[in-house]
Amino acid sequence: MKTILIRNVFFKERHVDILISGNRFSHISPAGEVSYEADEVIDGEGYAIVPPFYNMHTHAAMTLLRGYADDMPLKTWLEDYIWPYEATLTPDDIRKGTEIAIREMIKSGTVFFSDMYFEIPETIDVVNRMGVRAAIGVTFMDNHAKAVRNEKTRFIEEWKDPSGGRICLTAAPHAIYTVSAEGLKYSFGLARKHGLKIHMHLSETLGEVEQCIKEHGMRPVHYLDSLGLLGPDVILAHCVHVDDSEIAVLAKHDVTVVHCPCSNMKLGSGIFPYRKMIEAGVRVTLGTDGASSNNNLDMGEEMKFAALLSKTLGDVECLPADMAFKWATRNGAMGFGNDGGIIEEGRLADCLLIDTSEERMQPLHHFMANWVYSADSSCIDTVICDGRILMRGRKLLV
Amino acid sequence: MKTILIRNVFFKERHVDILISGNRFSHISPAGEVSYEADEVIDGEGYAIVPPFYNMHTHAAMTLLRGYADDMPLKTWLEDYIWPYEATLTPDDIRKGTEIAIREMIKSGTVFFSDMYFEIPETIDVVNRMGVRAAIGVTFMDNHAKAVRNEKTRFIEEWKDPSGGRICLTAAPHAIYTVSAEGLKYSFGLARKHGLKIHMHLSETLGEVEQCIKEHGMRPVHYLDSLGLLGPDVILAHCVHVDDSEIAVLAKHDVTVVHCPCSNMKLGSGIFPYRKMIEAGVRVTLGTDGASSNNNLDMGEEMKFAALLSKTLGDVECLPADMAFKWATRNGAMGFGNDGGIIEEGRLADCLLIDTSEERMQPLHHFMANWVYSADSSCIDTVICDGRILMRGRKLLV
Repeated sequence: MKTILIRNVFFKERHVDILISGNRFSHISPAGEVSYEADEVIDGEGYAIVPPFYNMHTHAAMTLLRGYADDMPLKTWLEDYIWPYEATLTPDDIRKGTEIAIREMIKSGTVFFSDMYFEIPETIDVVNRMGVRAAIGVTFMDNHAKAVRNEKTRFIEEWKDPSGGRICLTAAPHAIYTVSAEGLKYSFGLARKHGLKIHMHLSETLGEVEQCIKEHGMRPVHYLDSLGLLGPDVILAHCVHVDDSEIAVLAKHDVTVVHCPCSNMKLGSGIFPYRKMIEAGVRVTLGTDGASSNNNLDMGEEMKFAALLSKTLGDVECLPADMAFKWATRNGAMGFGNDGGIIEEGRLADCLLIDTSEERMQPLHHFMANWVYSADSSCIDTVICDGRILMRGRKLLV
Repeated sequence: MKTILIRNVFFKERHVDILISGNRFSHISPAGEVSYEADEVIDGEGYAIVPPFYNMHTHAAMTLLRGYADDMPLKTWLEDYIWPYEATLTPDDIRKGTEIAIREMIKSGTVFFSDMYFEIPETIDVVNRMGVRAAIGVTFMDNHAKAVRNEKTRFIEEWKDPSGGRICLTAAPHAIYTVSAEGLKYSFGLARKHGLKIHMHLSETLGEVEQCIKEHGMRPVHYLDSLGLLGPDVILAHCVHVDDSEIAVLAKHDVTVVHCPCSNMKLGSGIFPYRKMIEAGVRVTLGTDGASSNNNLDMGEEMKFAALLSKTLGDVECLPADMAFKWATRNGAMGFGNDGGIIEEGRLADCLLIDTSEERMQPLHHFMANWVYSADSSCIDTVICDGRILMRGRKLLV
């Protein structure tokens, strides 16, 4: 079992030695107190260690559409640009787009992403090779032919993770306006039969909510609840337009919500109900959405955008730095029920080393304030996932 | 006169050779068309050239207070943390804080900043040595003793730029709630006598507007106008809470407005009236404000925050990428009446080289969308100011 020793690194206001054994943190002790033997030693002097980001909602290969169409109404953007372009994408394009996405994610400190796109065998292959973690959405939409649904079902039934624990599937019914009640019940049921999480869009726009009320006589969260579908295995992206009663239902069912501030702002979707979500105790996580509506996959930016947008209208104590950080890291891991997203003995050996000599990390009054409000990807020196070094000295090793 | 040739660089959708002679761009021609001789040659292959940022409102040495106090109400933040800390700062502290600020600014692509702080001889010395441009505010507040005002007046009267054109002074009456009508007239008059621009805070918070209405019977812009003070030499930071009639007055007098999106969001000040400012034709520029309310000096982030915040409530075509870029570059130079902020023969030789091989700059559907919405400081390879290379290969040379 390979061991890596990170020596004398800044961790929670003190300096420690951290030993990684295989894919776990095995020992954490005050710097210099214990003499560890290790296959590889990293000098942590001048660096802080933090858990990496969990990007809880993205469409990775949409890096191919980065900057292709911006600054226009949603309908024009989707119908005249995004959909026609997507119709031309080949499996090889998806492979290339996913490679760009994963390189970008590693360089900005992300080691896990929850994806929703197509040609998923290509995506799985790239994730497996490049060493990150991912939850790959098997999408369901009503406009799929019956043979396609059968094929997706078989894919789930026959699934074996080729990576030894880094990759899982999700059932990903696209949204309530593209999947009927029958389709929702089918995909949720399939997920539960096979122990998969469910990943879907919900209440991203006001139009979606209005349509739901018109068609089903109730708001989207209540609609899902009325179908008996909500639970702690459900991960809902966006949830911008949810009212107090819906937030209470999300909390009651221990649902995971994915807030995507940059995408919501760029598409003019509205402001996430930060204060109400926090007070109700909903498990909020963060995501970048696809690179065509962001336009990057940088979770550090999402932390800052969320923390600042929460305060914009005057509630300056709303989402403090340490909570934004938890949304971007630990809460994501919890949403997937894995034990990453936190640095602790026995946990998954995923971490970032942050160069605290960078000007934007200086002075070190409060590390977490600097990390959330001031840092950018240029401060990230090293990325480790599952005990493997993916980036060192800002050079990708994958 | 030193010459630098940047060969085969991507510029406005084509490749060009750019010759810098002394501190000016002297020749721009299609790549390979002309054989230039130069003292230094930079291979521009794989890079795009853009004008650098003009940070139009900051308090540079407040880098010292980065992360010192966050996520609390303005009054607590100022009275219990910021002011007591500032009272302890020595000239040597200001020097160190300004050095951190300028290193951070260069690394994030800024070559000009308009400053408002104290111990300005220290700041001027650091700016002169480190090779950037700055407008240094000579602050005026009513609580200054008469001797202090006289000293500041003498400083302006005796001012000689030690840098050969990179540094100017501004008269900087702090705000309408700290400077009386008499004090405003004095500092504005002094500025105009000596050909300086005027830099002040205005209408940052709702409270400031309400106090102005109570004391003067009119809103802040009308108050300055009633004193006969507005003109194209006036640079007003924030202007969050200005109504339609005030925006018309700002446009009529050709005033420069500095929008500071991160600071306004973090302090909960409110949302800048983007659409109305644009439609009225006001010259809007961008600034970071101090690092204690941001918490960095990264103008690239300000571009993205402004462009996204403008769209948040649904006006998705409001501030497109190319306009946000102009606010962050050319408009700042125009506000100061200098001919930087644009790459053109005869203009000041200030530029950035952007690494277009970085994942977040890929693919190159639209360079400007990538630059505004996707890039971060890690994409900036080279920074040139006044014909001097300040950073190359992300290594600071100053």
